[in-house]
Amino acid sequence: MKSIIIASTSTIHGSGYLEYLLDELENHFKSVNEILFIPYARPGGISHDAYTEIASKAFKRIEKTVKGIHEFDNAENAIKNAEGIFVGGGNTFVLVSQLYKNKALAPIKTAVTNGIPYLGTSAGSNICGLTMNTTNDMPIMYPPSFKTLGLVPFNINPHYLDPIVESKHMGETRETRIKEFHAFNNQPVIGLREGSWIAVENDLLTLKGTLEARIFECGKTPYEIETNSDLAFLK
Amino acid sequence: MKSIIIASTSTIHGSGYLEYLLDELENHFKSVNEILFIPYARPGGISHDAYTEIASKAFKRIEKTVKGIHEFDNAENAIKNAEGIFVGGGNTFVLVSQLYKNKALAPIKTAVTNGIPYLGTSAGSNICGLTMNTTNDMPIMYPPSFKTLGLVPFNINPHYLDPIVESKHMGETRETRIKEFHAFNNQPVIGLREGSWIAVENDLLTLKGTLEARIFECGKTPYEIETNSDLAFLK
Repeated sequence: MKSIIIASTSTIHGSGYLEYLLDELENHFKSVNEILFIPYARPGGISHDAYTEIASKAFKRIEKTVKGIHEFDNAENAIKNAEGIFVGGGNTFVLVSQLYKNKALAPIKTAVTNGIPYLGTSAGSNICGLTMNTTNDMPIMYPPSFKTLGLVPFNINPHYLDPIVESKHMGETRETRIKEFHAFNNQPVIGLREGSWIAVENDLLTLKGTLEARIFECGKTPYEIETNSDLAFLK
Repeated sequence: MKSIIIASTSTIHGSGYLEYLLDELENHFKSVNEILFIPYARPGGISHDAYTEIASKAFKRIEKTVKGIHEFDNAENAIKNAEGIFVGGGNTFVLVSQLYKNKALAPIKTAVTNGIPYLGTSAGSNICGLTMNTTNDMPIMYPPSFKTLGLVPFNINPHYLDPIVESKHMGETRETRIKEFHAFNNQPVIGLREGSWIAVENDLLTLKGTLEARIFECGKTPYEIETNSDLAFLK
């Protein structure tokens, strides 16, 4: 029993925080009054309090209260007692370091497997994959491992970006980076464009939003899949 | 006694591999016949042989031979006996993992400190900094540490990229990423644009190439410095 939203981004261009997802979240968290927010990814290095305030304001619009995990004495107990969980974006290395430090990964996996609704955006989506090896973030902190929740049997690349036509920059495109990943790793990767998300309901995995997603399987040419595609084939 | 070139990139747009640097390299390696090439970063996952062949072709134009470190039985001895060292670009996580695996970092540091001329491009430049925390690469492999050579008392951000005006992509700009780095780390970072390099001659550190570089110091507003600036202030 699982109910998960794995979103490419919290915010799409020209729209407020979580705004494009609010209808979906109203349904996703319909049985939930208070959401446990995990602000560990600290975008731009902001404080846990400041970040929780941002999440709180967005969820107020659908009449949910939000409490930051840092407000509890014990992170494991906070997760065990949560009605719903939201892990926000920021830096995946900072997020994963803090999750390991507070022994939070196993309790989150248990809670989500037991049916507690989960929302991840960006870094919070990355950790739903098998590993964080396909994050776009700068490695500003050294986590004890790159292994993550494995709530889906593949890796996530959020904020997926198509090559910029006529760019003169010689840095690798996102596609080149994921191809390099597959020189050393086997699991599939889904490149989720901003505005896309994966909805997991029990064993049903579906691509949502208006856009296509790009699929990278080891040894195959990358290809596009339509929105509303069933992602069960991806493992 | 040090003689180091820390280049943002091996290749600038519209030019061949190392082409923009060849005059500089002819002087840098003037006392060297054979350069030890370290192909561990494996751009795009190419083999050590294939990558060494690329480096070899470029250096042939200035009449230097190139031998890959993988052609030697023992990496440490290969470094100890090297006349000159070139660490090529690719993926910094792959490079650093392999350097640790083959116990190559300490011998490189010793060789370079003893005056063996060193060239790094991209990932090979990242490792000249205190840590690899400011690489742009995807973390496709888990290295035993992010600590690198510390040949200069700051961190490098190669392929430095200015924000793309009017981009609707919500992923972090390079500047935002480096600001996040400074939420958790203190050392300065130099953003080296493609075509720039740092020349180290003993204790003299100079920005070279035609472009400005962007300096990020913890707690300060980022700022530009002119080419030919002395970088000794940066620590």
